[in-house]
Amino acid sequence: CRYFTAFLAYGGCNLVLGATAAALCAYIAPAAAGSGIPEVKAYLNGVDAYSILAPSTLFVKIFGSILGVSGGFVLGKEGPMVHTGACIANLLGQGGSRKYHLTWNWLKYFKNDRDRRDLITCGAAAGVAAAFRAPVGGVLFALEEAASWWRSALLWRTFFTTAVVAVVLRALIEFCRKGKCGLFGQGGLIMFDLSSNVPSYGTQDLIAIIILGVIGGVFGGLFNFLLDRILRVYSIINERGAPSKILLTITISIITSACSYGLPWLAACSPCPVGSMEECPTIGRSGNFKSFQCPPGHYNGLASLFFNTNDDAIRNLFSRGTENEFHMSSLFVFFIAIYCLGLVTYGIAVPSGLFIPVILAGATYGRIVGTLLGPMSDIDPGLFALLGAASFLGGTMRMTVSVCVILLELTNELHMLPLVMLVLLISKTIADCFNKGVYDQIVVMKGLPFMEAHAEPYMRHLVASDVVSGPLISFSGVEKVGNIVHALRITGHNGFPVVDEPPVSEAPELVGLVLRSHVLVLLSGRNFMKEKVKTSGSFVLRRFGAFDFAKPGSGKGMKIEDLDFTEEEMEMYVDLHPITNTSPYTVVETMSLAKAAVLFRALGLRHLLVVPKTPGRFPIVGILTRHDLMPEHIHGLFPNLRKSH
Amino acid sequence: CRYFTAFLAYGGCNLVLGATAAALCAYIAPAAAGSGIPEVKAYLNGVDAYSILAPSTLFVKIFGSILGVSGGFVLGKEGPMVHTGACIANLLGQGGSRKYHLTWNWLKYFKNDRDRRDLITCGAAAGVAAAFRAPVGGVLFALEEAASWWRSALLWRTFFTTAVVAVVLRALIEFCRKGKCGLFGQGGLIMFDLSSNVPSYGTQDLIAIIILGVIGGVFGGLFNFLLDRILRVYSIINERGAPSKILLTITISIITSACSYGLPWLAACSPCPVGSMEECPTIGRSGNFKSFQCPPGHYNGLASLFFNTNDDAIRNLFSRGTENEFHMSSLFVFFIAIYCLGLVTYGIAVPSGLFIPVILAGATYGRIVGTLLGPMSDIDPGLFALLGAASFLGGTMRMTVSVCVILLELTNELHMLPLVMLVLLISKTIADCFNKGVYDQIVVMKGLPFMEAHAEPYMRHLVASDVVSGPLISFSGVEKVGNIVHALRITGHNGFPVVDEPPVSEAPELVGLVLRSHVLVLLSGRNFMKEKVKTSGSFVLRRFGAFDFAKPGSGKGMKIEDLDFTEEEMEMYVDLHPITNTSPYTVVETMSLAKAAVLFRALGLRHLLVVPKTPGRFPIVGILTRHDLMPEHIHGLFPNLRKSH
Repeated sequence: CRYFTAFLAYGGCNLVLGATAAALCAYIAPAAAGSGIPEVKAYLNGVDAYSILAPSTLFVKIFGSILGVSGGFVLGKEGPMVHTGACIANLLGQGGSRKYHLTWNWLKYFKNDRDRRDLITCGAAAGVAAAFRAPVGGVLFALEEAASWWRSALLWRTFFTTAVVAVVLRALIEFCRKGKCGLFGQGGLIMFDLSSNVPSYGTQDLIAIIILGVIGGVFGGLFNFLLDRILRVYSIINERGAPSKILLTITISIITSACSYGLPWLAACSPCPVGSMEECPTIGRSGNFKSFQCPPGHYNGLASLFFNTNDDAIRNLFSRGTENEFHMSSLFVFFIAIYCLGLVTYGIAVPSGLFIPVILAGATYGRIVGTLLGPMSDIDPGLFALLGAASFLGGTMRMTVSVCVILLELTNELHMLPLVMLVLLISKTIADCFNKGVYDQIVVMKGLPFMEAHAEPYMRHLVASDVVSGPLISFSGVEKVGNIVHALRITGHNGFPVVDEPPVSEAPELVGLVLRSHVLVLLSGRNFMKEKVKTSGSFVLRRFGAFDFAKPGSGKGMKIEDLDFTEEEMEMYVDLHPITNTSPYTVVETMSLAKAAVLFRALGLRHLLVVPKTPGRFPIVGILTRHDLMPEHIHGLFPNLRKSH
Repeated sequence: CRYFTAFLAYGGCNLVLGATAAALCAYIAPAAAGSGIPEVKAYLNGVDAYSILAPSTLFVKIFGSILGVSGGFVLGKEGPMVHTGACIANLLGQGGSRKYHLTWNWLKYFKNDRDRRDLITCGAAAGVAAAFRAPVGGVLFALEEAASWWRSALLWRTFFTTAVVAVVLRALIEFCRKGKCGLFGQGGLIMFDLSSNVPSYGTQDLIAIIILGVIGGVFGGLFNFLLDRILRVYSIINERGAPSKILLTITISIITSACSYGLPWLAACSPCPVGSMEECPTIGRSGNFKSFQCPPGHYNGLASLFFNTNDDAIRNLFSRGTENEFHMSSLFVFFIAIYCLGLVTYGIAVPSGLFIPVILAGATYGRIVGTLLGPMSDIDPGLFALLGAASFLGGTMRMTVSVCVILLELTNELHMLPLVMLVLLISKTIADCFNKGVYDQIVVMKGLPFMEAHAEPYMRHLVASDVVSGPLISFSGVEKVGNIVHALRITGHNGFPVVDEPPVSEAPELVGLVLRSHVLVLLSGRNFMKEKVKTSGSFVLRRFGAFDFAKPGSGKGMKIEDLDFTEEEMEMYVDLHPITNTSPYTVVETMSLAKAAVLFRALGLRHLLVVPKTPGRFPIVGILTRHDLMPEHIHGLFPNLRKSH
């Protein structure tokens, strides 16, 4: 009964923390739920959705993540930290906030797509660097997983960012070494330092490790498959509104509390090891050996994993020279519980990363294998746990170099590098046979129009004009205001071709492309003319400042509904030439769709003009946008195309 | 006098080794001289020069490098190993050698530009991985410095390659641990293992390190500047033919021998440290303390650096807890000598890498700073040597992530990572103010048409048709054999536009682009027609196999001189439609040159068709190739353009 009261207190705390996080998420910023890495990935691919990186998302992400981690859920803070970094970078890139007088003049350099994207990539890198204390891993993560376009300038910028993160982190850890900041200073710059004498391994170990990699890949692929199913179920629940989101979170919180409090009862008490450097048992603070219900001088192995912070649980699993710390049964129970809890926790309305659950499950799996092989292998179970974590990470995330470096920076175990690389490769290859990486899967499931770097094989059988959709709306070089306003009101297009027609030119001729945002700025200047004549550009642009046409902060652009025009103004003309991009990228209508898609993706375009092949026709056939190149759109138009060749 | 005989023997051996290497280089494969990294970089950028990766180059690179390193020159084996890796990859990618019956069927998948380029990138990565025993560093080097196009598939392929390298290397080291393979097994997988207790550093150290980075950057920039001057002088000497190349090498060999044998006499003997783990002095094998002329129980500090293998010299400089091993004067003499020898050695007709000289000079510089600051700083001079090496590498090579990871994998010193990152960034930034990275400089000096990833600012003031050069040669869809043969003979163009003209089409119409190599294969089939009519493609291609049109191995393509046609055949017609690429990338003539250049570079094109803007003209204006986009070509056409804005 005293134990039941304790459970109520424990579960109650967790429940309140979890419910608060869910309420924040559900009512303030639904976009803050989940890892955030898929969203950041989509944003860097060119999906310009406002809510992804909005300030409210940032706020909920930070506090929701703190509440979620404290609430004892099986979730990580790494994904949310990546998202947080990206949000902060976005806030900076918008030129601060004009509302709160937080703005600097030099920030105007980020008023274009590419520099803003670079800044957000740096933010994501900084997030990983801070979360894992892995500066190089952060750079590689940003390049391998987050960014869609690599440039050497980007490499150097992310490297700069994470170097600053590393130096600051180092200084803070130095400052906190005396325990002034709670758990923060612990562990130093390397979170799970494993380095010691050189591990040796022979051929039989290599075979064991290959098998470990294969099974890890299968488990990883299964994880992705099950996660996909669970997320589809959850999305039905979550669509019912905020209360059901909170209810779902509360349910998971109760299950988690029950597991982490109830399951340790199954484990027997073990006597503390003699001569250990660690305090045993540790009571009232984080540590390696948890006493739980055990008498003094004893510890409960399962409680040391369950009833502990996730970081300490991982440290326990990775620890070397502790072959007998955990019973086999404890490891089994923990593995099954964590694997399932990790699956059901992601998708609730709380900021939640996948790294920690996957590392935890993988490390447990590795330690089980290591313990089973104990007498036959030269490798310590702690190192097997490292390899197990690598195999799960490879199997779910499908990253290679970045996971490898992150694990290296987490554990400082350079000697194991060849084995970690091998395991990562094997598990990734195996899992790739089943499904896509977990983040790619989530991007698809969320319906974000992510463009793959390669063209799909069926695109080779189509040409560019096959997929151009909708009626074409084009403007004359000097167009009537009423026509423009009408076009902007009835469509959501963000780009319009400009065509000069007689009498301005001899024959209809493509001038270029205008952007909706630029047209709106031009209209707001109300610099209209009575006659349909071409003007000199300087006259039209005289009223505007250098940065009036710059890309506005996300969510801050002008809208056509904000503008009102008199009848008289609607009948006047405006010259679009000065704001027309006269060098848009074009493809001929008979261009292979695969090649057009590669062009679109490689140059990071938003609009690609399709021009006719034969002369004498209207000089533009249509505009290709991201949505026209999405598989769903193409398969909708051509249902008989095979998905692959 | 006994010493003089010893010098003669030492210098003589070096001279013979050096002269042999130079003779190999000068007579068999001049392309094998130097580092090879600039050439590999240019190849991966799309410069398809045969000799760069020819089998003869491979042969000379391997043996020349062995001879050069044994000959006591101040040069590294890292650059040559990158080149060697790339050459081997190229040999594999050509489908083995048909001449020696070394061919496999699956190798035909490399019969296209992109896969062959990927394979060579993997080869380069394997070279770095093997040279530094740094598998992750190899991946990053390949991506940061060597490759011009990054794809996630490439990342994963290079990672796979270096993982195999790491596992094989580990197995070989394990096998050689008992000293069966000379010096190879020494040092284990980590060449200069520095790891020990956590180094601590304070604010005053941070300031010292920033100054170290600044001065390192200046030295690095100066190195590049001087190297450029020396290479220009050398190229005049080397152009006089093979004998002067050998003579130059002999001169440098004598200077190097004189330095490494003569300068140690300047240093006083020091008594061996008490309680050192190392044998002291070491005689007759590589080691930390060289006795040279000293009495037993003493060692000569300068000889321990000079009269030693480069690897051991670096190990000496990096070694921790050896504050007083080297006199200040010894370090100074060694620094000046190595800096100058490194400069004059690169450029002689011997395969020579730059990594080792730069690391040696940088480590000495760092150790000097560390020794000077000795009492004021908490950081060991050995770690200062590491930071000095980082600052020089950053200052000359301008790489960031890859150097950082390579140094980490060389030294296993993760705790210094934030400082290494900081130093690299500072020195790179400082040196970037003066000149370009050393490899970029050499690429420019060798006149290789390397395309930068970004467009130059002056390109914004030009349009695509401004730089199209030469008279346009185009073929009809069904063309007379004689015309084709004539065109192929008088020009060296590799691509020709195909235009259908009446009566085949209504108006002149652009069909696409044919490649010279495909035309040659088609002509060799002698499938000609009497009449000028369009055929069905299958008829024309019936005689050819699936891979007849695949990209041939480098240097193996057909030549127009190999084909002979009768008068009768010359009057017949051939249908080019079946081999025409009907979806070439095109730009309108008024397209901004900057945008055309970005398109060309981002998609890795070899030909970009320029089409007219207004209808009614001949449907093609010209073809842009790599050479048309080179700064020299553009500045030749428009001498008044400013180089930068």
